[in-house]
Amino acid sequence: MSKIGILGATGAVGRQMMQSLIEQDIRVDELRLFASSRSSGKTLPFKDTDIPLQVASESSFEGLDYVLGAVSNDLSKQYRPMIEKANTVYIDNSSAFRLEDNVPLVIPEINGQDAFNHHGIIANPNCSTIITYMALYPIHKLSPLKAVYASTYQAVSGAGNQGIEELKTQVSSLLNDQPITSAVFPTQIAYNCIPQIGSPTENDYTSEEMKMLNEGRKILHAPDLKVNCTCVRVPVFRSHSISVTAITKDKLDLNDIIRSLKQAKGVIYEDQDIVTPLQTSNQDNVYVSRIRRDLVNENGITLWCCGDQIRKGAASNAVAIIKLLES
Amino acid sequence: MSKIGILGATGAVGRQMMQSLIEQDIRVDELRLFASSRSSGKTLPFKDTDIPLQVASESSFEGLDYVLGAVSNDLSKQYRPMIEKANTVYIDNSSAFRLEDNVPLVIPEINGQDAFNHHGIIANPNCSTIITYMALYPIHKLSPLKAVYASTYQAVSGAGNQGIEELKTQVSSLLNDQPITSAVFPTQIAYNCIPQIGSPTENDYTSEEMKMLNEGRKILHAPDLKVNCTCVRVPVFRSHSISVTAITKDKLDLNDIIRSLKQAKGVIYEDQDIVTPLQTSNQDNVYVSRIRRDLVNENGITLWCCGDQIRKGAASNAVAIIKLLES
Repeated sequence: MSKIGILGATGAVGRQMMQSLIEQDIRVDELRLFASSRSSGKTLPFKDTDIPLQVASESSFEGLDYVLGAVSNDLSKQYRPMIEKANTVYIDNSSAFRLEDNVPLVIPEINGQDAFNHHGIIANPNCSTIITYMALYPIHKLSPLKAVYASTYQAVSGAGNQGIEELKTQVSSLLNDQPITSAVFPTQIAYNCIPQIGSPTENDYTSEEMKMLNEGRKILHAPDLKVNCTCVRVPVFRSHSISVTAITKDKLDLNDIIRSLKQAKGVIYEDQDIVTPLQTSNQDNVYVSRIRRDLVNENGITLWCCGDQIRKGAASNAVAIIKLLES
Repeated sequence: MSKIGILGATGAVGRQMMQSLIEQDIRVDELRLFASSRSSGKTLPFKDTDIPLQVASESSFEGLDYVLGAVSNDLSKQYRPMIEKANTVYIDNSSAFRLEDNVPLVIPEINGQDAFNHHGIIANPNCSTIITYMALYPIHKLSPLKAVYASTYQAVSGAGNQGIEELKTQVSSLLNDQPITSAVFPTQIAYNCIPQIGSPTENDYTSEEMKMLNEGRKILHAPDLKVNCTCVRVPVFRSHSISVTAITKDKLDLNDIIRSLKQAKGVIYEDQDIVTPLQTSNQDNVYVSRIRRDLVNENGITLWCCGDQIRKGAASNAVAIIKLLES
């Protein structure tokens, strides 16, 4: 018996959370949907009912078992004390609390056990981080990861519905010889790649790039893991892709890696087909292809992986944490 | 006094070669344009004349000082003996002869001296290879490159005018709810990334990826250089981008690298602005940005670079080889 709230229900991730609750067969006895005041008076359909959208306030979370968070860091921080006061479990997709000691950071297929040690908040990792480590964990199980080189090809959905709309609008405007504007992204994303996601940090990596390092260490319990990441936005709608080289403690056999990937839950290894972000959209699986030996380091493995940013990169991973806690 | 022929004059690279001859102020006393029989009877404008397109035959190259090649490997091999017989210098953009011992592989800013040791053929390197090593050479001069990790974001122009048309047509069809077809690329390129360029080789890297290794070694005279490259097609029209980590023999100071980049001819270092493929299109410079220390290897440097594939990646580099030989 679960009573669940969703913060940010009208966003791309919030809507997918509603759908994932159904797909993952979570028993929902009550669903409360929270959004900004712009949505007041509106409803969203869930199963055979229409659920009103409400603005969250001090007492909104009373009686809930879980709150799924799909809002900004600022809003998440603002709602935290109210959720804690209601004694509910907050599964938060923002990055506000991911690195806090008492907050487990969980990908159920990798470190599901960590979820059970929560103190009221469980954090959902960054989208590229989830997809990359879903692909790398079957390798890590064979021999511990020592270092990772990653270059991402990130979809516009990472910036929510507004990101998707900006790409669509720019393409349409350009086809009609109309001027374009960039509000969500720092410059035109149509027919372009933008090597800047997140804000700069003092080592000149962006906040988004440092997540691959800091969150990876926490998820894998590998405090010495070294990660060099470059995050790039590409004009793709929903799936993120990552070009990765992983260097392991021992030299591994490619066939052993392929066997481990084939056995991994939530991962599909493709030997022959070209795996693209388009092909891997609208589903929860992470796809891995193009496995080959690193030509620089003999303990390195190079691969390509793709996964839906809104689903496994966010909503369906968060819902899978509820599924795990209820199991 | 130069008499010049262009093989494949109607293609994206061939047309740019004509424009680059003017831009680089090459003295052209005669220009012969070669194309397939489909273009027979047509002309292309050059300066204030219209030059007829002809189908190359046994005697077509007689009297020419240079032939610029912008045709497939197969056609280039077919024309080679005719060009050699005419005792002209063949500057070839195909990959057919790039790794032959007697064929210099030249980026004028890097190994221009090699061009003077030709035996009738000088090869123009692969587009991503030119752009990447233009960005890395100023670092290599400070301390020799030992290893390179590269993930590319390659424009559709790499597949010529047909690649550009396929992206345009797919976007337009999708906007009008029409079915799309993929003939040039192995699957839909609109709103997608395709991690396969070139054909597979026995180590599971593609032919395109191995160029970054084999051509890089030859250009830099660095036979032990290790390179791990992943080549990915993205829905961008003209400029290639590359996410690179270069590991040098010695640990370098970032300020020394920036100084070296700022001094490098044909390279523009951008400290503040975001450098995108769109912004760097339709010009010959290679742009470098986002320089930072590798978080894996203390002798590593990570950066982002972009350059126009049709220009510096192909046509303008080839024309610059004529400029060099005439200097």
